[in-house]
Amino acid sequence: MKKKVYVIGIGPGAYEEMTIRAVRAMESCEVIIGYTVYVDLVKEQFPGKTFLTTPMTKEVERCEMALREAREGRTTAMICSGDAGVYGMAGLMHEIRNERGYSEVEIEVVPGITAATAGAAILGAPLIHDFAVISLSDLLTPWEKIEERLRSAAKGDFAICLYNPSSRKRKDYLRRACEILLEYQSPDTVCGYVRQIARDGQEKHVTTLGRLKETGTDMFTTVFIGNSQTRVIGEAMVTPRGYRYEKED
Amino acid sequence: MKKKVYVIGIGPGAYEEMTIRAVRAMESCEVIIGYTVYVDLVKEQFPGKTFLTTPMTKEVERCEMALREAREGRTTAMICSGDAGVYGMAGLMHEIRNERGYSEVEIEVVPGITAATAGAAILGAPLIHDFAVISLSDLLTPWEKIEERLRSAAKGDFAICLYNPSSRKRKDYLRRACEILLEYQSPDTVCGYVRQIARDGQEKHVTTLGRLKETGTDMFTTVFIGNSQTRVIGEAMVTPRGYRYEKED
Repeated sequence: MKKKVYVIGIGPGAYEEMTIRAVRAMESCEVIIGYTVYVDLVKEQFPGKTFLTTPMTKEVERCEMALREAREGRTTAMICSGDAGVYGMAGLMHEIRNERGYSEVEIEVVPGITAATAGAAILGAPLIHDFAVISLSDLLTPWEKIEERLRSAAKGDFAICLYNPSSRKRKDYLRRACEILLEYQSPDTVCGYVRQIARDGQEKHVTTLGRLKETGTDMFTTVFIGNSQTRVIGEAMVTPRGYRYEKED
Repeated sequence: MKKKVYVIGIGPGAYEEMTIRAVRAMESCEVIIGYTVYVDLVKEQFPGKTFLTTPMTKEVERCEMALREAREGRTTAMICSGDAGVYGMAGLMHEIRNERGYSEVEIEVVPGITAATAGAAILGAPLIHDFAVISLSDLLTPWEKIEERLRSAAKGDFAICLYNPSSRKRKDYLRRACEILLEYQSPDTVCGYVRQIARDGQEKHVTTLGRLKETGTDMFTTVFIGNSQTRVIGEAMVTPRGYRYEKED
């Protein structure tokens, strides 16, 4: 009998942001496992499933729980918000499967809409051309490394999407990130941020890098910093495809 | 009456990779417009719609066609492969709406699964942590700018996803990109590429940066270059979340 764990990105929040493939995969499962908040987001849509949850920090345990369920013959879905492969559980699931001897269990990763593209769609088109995605969380990454990535992305004139811009313990991280970017980019650089993407209370804001530095965000916010070409068109934050305008000038 | 254009990312190819929201938006439309190949991918699923197509290069015309249809009262979907906001039509649609006076038409961008996360899911989890997305197409971007972005991404130790790695006219671009990355990264850096994501003939390959340089790809290939931490686990290409392993050593 096939023993299988699906690692599924459920998208930013709303059920309709899930792919048809993700829904079918979850319907095919006996057990659905995730962080409490994400399980609550999908519970109603998948009646008759066994739901198992662990707190935010218990990710290794959550992966092993899923692998154990699958090994015992219950096809299992591990759900992540956004995309399972972008700051999600897809990697850790492969690591734990390998380190703890669950090689008989097959892993299938089902992609989902990540906050970068979900938030971009709400703001307009900030990531239409080359971009970098950087998390400001220093739980697993030294701040020096994060700083180095911010500098590299700014030097390369990438549009930048910031995940985890701040939290209760990291209130000033977005300000520190903006200060670094301001060494390379104009304070007029077009920026935007979206709160509670595809959830109740969704908010979008278009601003500048100078003003973003003074803006308080939270862990439910995704931040977008434009490249040198990014402009405001109507109320939208839009990065042109390449350098069409330069060439035409 | 509301005049509306949806700019919809239909995902990498297979119908089931579309989001429920994208399907519902297309069902609500009278007219569906896109590049011929993408329209053919979805035509069967949406009977009774008016389908309009333009060739690959006629993107401005395609946007104006959609805006004109909407202004005349027919709710219209402009479809893009992957995500409409990642090398897609979302930005150009905002630009054309503004430049050519279609302000009465509302634009709603519906995100989709882009090749970066679709391909990552097939390979394992190469983009689990900070990453950069770079197109090697120099149609609208000077090659010097692309080179600068490759250098910046390598210096920042980003995992990198390359779109448009080559084409008939740009056969050696992937080789040139690899040569630049090899100035900063080991030839043993774990790399992968996926052809025909979610379409017939899908192929995945895990390799090294040194070997990738010698590999011929095509315009239907998405390429992934690992960061300094990326490893092969079983047959999967996996980038750890942050620097957990360094810390534990």
